[in-house]
Amino acid sequence: MIIQQRTVIQQRTVFYLSDRTGITAETLGHSLLTQFEQIAFQEISIPFIDSPAKARRAVERINQTAQEDGATPICFSTLVDTELHAIVRQSKGFMVDLFGTFIGPLEEELQVASSHTVGRAHGMADMQRYRLRIEAMNFALDADDGASDKDYQRADIILVGVSRCGKTPTCLYLALQFGLFAGNYPLLEEDLVSGDLPDIIAPYRQKLYGLLIDAERLAQIRQERRPDSSYASPQRCQEEIRACRQLFEEQAIPWINTTTRSIEEIAATILVETGLQRRLF
Amino acid sequence: MIIQQRTVIQQRTVFYLSDRTGITAETLGHSLLTQFEQIAFQEISIPFIDSPAKARRAVERINQTAQEDGATPICFSTLVDTELHAIVRQSKGFMVDLFGTFIGPLEEELQVASSHTVGRAHGMADMQRYRLRIEAMNFALDADDGASDKDYQRADIILVGVSRCGKTPTCLYLALQFGLFAGNYPLLEEDLVSGDLPDIIAPYRQKLYGLLIDAERLAQIRQERRPDSSYASPQRCQEEIRACRQLFEEQAIPWINTTTRSIEEIAATILVETGLQRRLF
Repeated sequence: MIIQQRTVIQQRTVFYLSDRTGITAETLGHSLLTQFEQIAFQEISIPFIDSPAKARRAVERINQTAQEDGATPICFSTLVDTELHAIVRQSKGFMVDLFGTFIGPLEEELQVASSHTVGRAHGMADMQRYRLRIEAMNFALDADDGASDKDYQRADIILVGVSRCGKTPTCLYLALQFGLFAGNYPLLEEDLVSGDLPDIIAPYRQKLYGLLIDAERLAQIRQERRPDSSYASPQRCQEEIRACRQLFEEQAIPWINTTTRSIEEIAATILVETGLQRRLF
Repeated sequence: MIIQQRTVIQQRTVFYLSDRTGITAETLGHSLLTQFEQIAFQEISIPFIDSPAKARRAVERINQTAQEDGATPICFSTLVDTELHAIVRQSKGFMVDLFGTFIGPLEEELQVASSHTVGRAHGMADMQRYRLRIEAMNFALDADDGASDKDYQRADIILVGVSRCGKTPTCLYLALQFGLFAGNYPLLEEDLVSGDLPDIIAPYRQKLYGLLIDAERLAQIRQERRPDSSYASPQRCQEEIRACRQLFEEQAIPWINTTTRSIEEIAATILVETGLQRRLF
């Protein structure tokens, strides 16, 4: 009889503790955790810890989890308020102080005291910044279904590519993350046959950036949208991608293959390659 | 003669150094900097530092900036590769090592070595995670212009509110950040007159979450979209918001006022208040 060896995977609960949305704590904490693939993490976000009472409730939850898990929870904190941070530090969690760790050295280097103000990063502190993002998102949404010449004039960048190659999510991400006005132009079969740039985008050649995708993946995506259509057929997808690539090369339009890249990677690559200045950080 | 006192504002250049997209470095770095309001920061992102040559180019740029500014640049690094990090550490910048600072203590606490693998956070390491986000974003986009009963069935949450109160940006953010399938229903004048929940969303009462906005701000937003229309008139906006709020209260639909909140805050608040489980971290 063969006794199968049991693989024991370590499990840990992770808490993200924040006085505002928790996004900063989640972003860095999650990045750090991806370095420990051997461990199964259960992630829990506790945002809006903005009073001693809420801090104490967070402590109770961490301590209860420690008991249930029989393992120390990992806590990533971006709490700015020293009183609140002092409370959560008393929990049984392993505290990673993402904020406090660097504030001291930065104060010393900059020779000024930090304001210790809560939640400036994703709050409404900067109203102008916020409105810019919304405006940029609305631009991406409005320009999505048939942009006008006026839209293209206003655009910081215009993504071109065949249907379902990733234009819209990328435009929205460029708007949300960088405040950029990103338009797009879907290359239709007739555009690809002619081999010329469509008239409406030809004047904006300098703003064009191409998206390509592997034909196989494209067919898969289209199949989910319109099963068994000619639109989703492998032959048509192959043909569109081939013609699209040829157009980009003949017209000297820079392009990126989106197949194996996340939205963040596509957006960051476009910024680096075009030298486009983001409108916000 | 009165000599006006010159306010000298300290200026510093900030570099975000990363082997992948730079988003993690930017997020935490930017949060930390918001604590130093007295200083004017010029932020520069250098992503995709994935070779010694690129690391050396980053060093040159930092050193040149140090010379031009006559002040030490602040560098936030999430470089995982120890060789690359060693190169950038030799620059004249003040290095804030967002990754290395915590990896050691985490390795000790978890009792495992980290994989020191580059760019797992926003890369394609997790294909399933990536596809979920795209699927959720497409859901939000598709469901935006008139969702069907099938869409509402599938939705994790359905945002309701008058035109231009912030439904679509919030839905897209819930999709992108949390992988949630967020639908929306725009409350039209006729819906508000009846005082009942519209038939199409009535079966999904448990999924409904209301968005309100100050009438003055709403009029301002609508004015930008359709100048001097009755749609944008202060009276109509006031009336719609009043009726909308009444509907939420009578139908016991939880709601949030979006006027003074960022998209991140609205989304994080909805998660906390509904107890909705995010599909991804």
